[in-house]
Amino acid sequence: MAKTSEKRFALGVDYGTNSVRALIVDVSDGSEVGTAVYDYPSGQNGILLDARDPNLARQNPADYVEGFYASVRGAIADASKKRGFSVDRIVGIGVDTTASTPLPVDRQGKPLAVLPEFRKDLAAHAWLWKDHTSHAEALEITAKAARAKEGYLDKCGGAYSSEWFWSKILHCIRTSPKVAKAAYCWVEQCDFVSGFITGNTDPDTMPRGICAAGHKGLYHEDWGGLPNKRFLSSLSPELARVRDHYAAPALPSDRPAGAIDPAVAKKVGLPAGIPVAVGAIDAHLGAVGAGIKPGTLVKIIGTSTCDMLVVPGDQKAPDVPGLCGIVPGSIVPGMYGIEAGQSAVGDIFNWFTSYLTPAAYTAKGDPHANLTQAAMKLKPGESGLLALDWNNGNRSVLTDPLLTGLLVGQTLHTTAPEVYRALVEATAFGALTIINRYRDCGASVREVVNCGGIAEKSPFVMQIYADVCNVPMKISRSAQTCALGAAIFGAVVGGAYKTTEAAQRKMTGVKPTVYRPNRDAAKVYAQLYALYMQLHDAFGLPSHAAKLNNVMKDLIAIRNRQRAAK
Amino acid sequence: MAKTSEKRFALGVDYGTNSVRALIVDVSDGSEVGTAVYDYPSGQNGILLDARDPNLARQNPADYVEGFYASVRGAIADASKKRGFSVDRIVGIGVDTTASTPLPVDRQGKPLAVLPEFRKDLAAHAWLWKDHTSHAEALEITAKAARAKEGYLDKCGGAYSSEWFWSKILHCIRTSPKVAKAAYCWVEQCDFVSGFITGNTDPDTMPRGICAAGHKGLYHEDWGGLPNKRFLSSLSPELARVRDHYAAPALPSDRPAGAIDPAVAKKVGLPAGIPVAVGAIDAHLGAVGAGIKPGTLVKIIGTSTCDMLVVPGDQKAPDVPGLCGIVPGSIVPGMYGIEAGQSAVGDIFNWFTSYLTPAAYTAKGDPHANLTQAAMKLKPGESGLLALDWNNGNRSVLTDPLLTGLLVGQTLHTTAPEVYRALVEATAFGALTIINRYRDCGASVREVVNCGGIAEKSPFVMQIYADVCNVPMKISRSAQTCALGAAIFGAVVGGAYKTTEAAQRKMTGVKPTVYRPNRDAAKVYAQLYALYMQLHDAFGLPSHAAKLNNVMKDLIAIRNRQRAAK
Repeated sequence: MAKTSEKRFALGVDYGTNSVRALIVDVSDGSEVGTAVYDYPSGQNGILLDARDPNLARQNPADYVEGFYASVRGAIADASKKRGFSVDRIVGIGVDTTASTPLPVDRQGKPLAVLPEFRKDLAAHAWLWKDHTSHAEALEITAKAARAKEGYLDKCGGAYSSEWFWSKILHCIRTSPKVAKAAYCWVEQCDFVSGFITGNTDPDTMPRGICAAGHKGLYHEDWGGLPNKRFLSSLSPELARVRDHYAAPALPSDRPAGAIDPAVAKKVGLPAGIPVAVGAIDAHLGAVGAGIKPGTLVKIIGTSTCDMLVVPGDQKAPDVPGLCGIVPGSIVPGMYGIEAGQSAVGDIFNWFTSYLTPAAYTAKGDPHANLTQAAMKLKPGESGLLALDWNNGNRSVLTDPLLTGLLVGQTLHTTAPEVYRALVEATAFGALTIINRYRDCGASVREVVNCGGIAEKSPFVMQIYADVCNVPMKISRSAQTCALGAAIFGAVVGGAYKTTEAAQRKMTGVKPTVYRPNRDAAKVYAQLYALYMQLHDAFGLPSHAAKLNNVMKDLIAIRNRQRAAK
Repeated sequence: MAKTSEKRFALGVDYGTNSVRALIVDVSDGSEVGTAVYDYPSGQNGILLDARDPNLARQNPADYVEGFYASVRGAIADASKKRGFSVDRIVGIGVDTTASTPLPVDRQGKPLAVLPEFRKDLAAHAWLWKDHTSHAEALEITAKAARAKEGYLDKCGGAYSSEWFWSKILHCIRTSPKVAKAAYCWVEQCDFVSGFITGNTDPDTMPRGICAAGHKGLYHEDWGGLPNKRFLSSLSPELARVRDHYAAPALPSDRPAGAIDPAVAKKVGLPAGIPVAVGAIDAHLGAVGAGIKPGTLVKIIGTSTCDMLVVPGDQKAPDVPGLCGIVPGSIVPGMYGIEAGQSAVGDIFNWFTSYLTPAAYTAKGDPHANLTQAAMKLKPGESGLLALDWNNGNRSVLTDPLLTGLLVGQTLHTTAPEVYRALVEATAFGALTIINRYRDCGASVREVVNCGGIAEKSPFVMQIYADVCNVPMKISRSAQTCALGAAIFGAVVGGAYKTTEAAQRKMTGVKPTVYRPNRDAAKVYAQLYALYMQLHDAFGLPSHAAKLNNVMKDLIAIRNRQRAAK
């Protein structure tokens, strides 16, 4: 560890769905020195809703600006209590945000939402990642992209999502022409934030991050950046205009977007001149903060999951069907960043405790803890149950939002903890399916580093994941991996490290507790997984003719063996 | 109605699982004049259990004897309050019991269980219908019967059950040789009861009922009564001995087993000489009491169901695969009685309220009523859910106890009332599958008369059954259809009517409320039923290759249409 007098720091600013967090870390080891969180004041928990349309989710860009000021000031105040900290020892700033969260801006890069004439127009605000109003446009783009000779869909798993950049802009063009017309360009939230911090918000020249562009905007070097004008014009001429005002090439986060704007620096009490990294997607910088490297899959487990892997840049980039995106430099610069995801994990557990858990487990204490206590006494396969984890569709590897949940094996004695365990197992089977798909495409997965509340709080879930996936499950040392990942890029652009990998080696790590696969459990889960895949393919793949008559019988046979072994 | 001075009465005695009910009715219209119930004093609610084996369920035959005395005395006392009643106006007695509930008897027909040396031996007691200890023997018998040239399995749906006569005796031979050796013969509960009432318990001469023999004992005129000696000996020589002491032919219930034994008559206060009908299975006499006739399916809905139909005897007897049995004269003498059943109906609803219903629906009042109140507001298909009703296996038409439940279509918003409704619908789809199987085999089903608590108490369930099955659902006028059916045969053997049909026309009927199919609902349910059958065949039929990729999508499409139509 560096001597106090030589300490250097990096600042990471992490824009989440409901709040923004600033984190100051010691660049020598990534340890947290100061942090502060600012809850977005607009809407419900920072989200602007429309009672008439449950798919709509917008944000007020003014919250992003005020959030930077407040959280960074707070983190500095917090860090200032520590020995050896001073603001002039902050070497760099990194930023991550949700994505795709595009916002329309005017000629100067000012969000339309802050202009008096658009202040009340939800279409003029930031279109939050989980806004699903653009479902029809996503299908339209997917259909057109599938026919394009460039192979636009090859790098995004075969389908363009309603959550992504072009779907949202196209929906705005179709439904709020006034806003679309007033928009000189659209920018992703991460680019808007780094632009605002560096004082360069000019759409025509501001740097754009490869991470959001590649994973959400169909940006790829293979076809010269964004999709070509002909393609975009065929959807709408106004989409082509967005491309006209877009400064390619998009950049990875080890490149500076610029230095902090003196006015911004002054407002938060930072010295001028600090370099600011190009912004990126929160989960991806979370992977960096969790120590992602070839062979180490990082899994951020929350309401849904993000499953990220990197492949060395000197290997041929794999096209992995069913994953969300494969983008050079999107996670660790110099490597291919590959993202997959499960549409619902924590959300499924919460659904079960909210809607189908009897009073015995909800009356006192945390329903999850109560169900877990009973469910962990069961052996794998002992309940005879098997579930599909598709209550919110399937992101990877089927990329099909119109799939639903399934539970099979119920008897007249099936209990709530048994169903709860089956749901946990189903999400583990979903996780394994992603790992297998990565491996099928030549990427190695030797261990998994998990982040997020469930990973930290539920040894029950983690052990099942280890047993099902048959790889060690580790937990990220930092609980703030996204902000730490942003800080790592702050450290890199600030010169503390030459490469992202070098910074990661020093600044990231895992907790001492490692969940290792139990051999007996893994054997039973291998049998159950074969049945899961039977259901997966039967219900998930088109034109797949399946024999399923064995499923219920095999579950009973496994159940009987497991009960007898008790 | 007959003048008070001319009134005549019949007595029906209905032996259920937990109690026996005596019912005295006016033979002119079937109206109830007096009734009394006697709860079996032995075991738990009349059932002898073994903590080491959950499959074991026995009864004490002494309860049957005491139950007759107590319930008949009670019914007479109750009837005696009514004008015009007197015991000498009782023209006949009918009896029904559970089946297959065989008991081992000695040379005189005395149950071994009442002998001092066997009083504590559970194997020497009556083997209650729901005793499942004989699973292995059922498979053995099925395998041997399938190879027999007689086609023994053609009349019992293709599989011999662990609940039936020969399985139970064979299991006793294998596991309690002392009892098996001491048994001169085995008799069905219904034969034991009519034998005891008439004072003829000699195994070699006492009349046996065609109903239990045909549906549970592989008795059929096509192969000369019980299975031949060679077949039985190949399983065990002791089975052949049962055949040796069996007085064929087995008889329908419009035939008298004899007249009431003077000692028995005296004990309950009846005059001597009253004729007693040959005993039969409770559900089958329930069908008679509910007014079964060609085209009218009688459905007894309880924890499970019994679905009965009769086909005129001058038609060729259909062999209906997947039904429990087709027996000439078993329900209405002169017709073929066909029985099918669903392994769980009320049991599935009770499972859901016991194990997976949140406090909002269980804290106050009846959970079924609370869930129903919410579920009845939903339109067919609106939840997007579909279930298989196999939590307790599938009796008809798959005859497979090793099938289990399935639920598909869950989202993150699926509620308990939605699941409850899906479970009710699943049982309705199961009911329709039986109706369709009957029809496929040439039997007409124009209406359904329902009996049992659910039928009487849940307009919600009945309307769904009407909409799903697309036939009118009626409710039996009598709530005691089994005892009424027994009384009808009492009336017939007592000479009040020449035929069972004539007695039924006067003594049975339905309630004024008829649940008629709603055209729009029936249309949607036809679509859902097609999806149900896809799952049914995929999971239920061996070697059936199914494409199921459409199932979740179609459910969502139906859901969206139904929500939009609201």
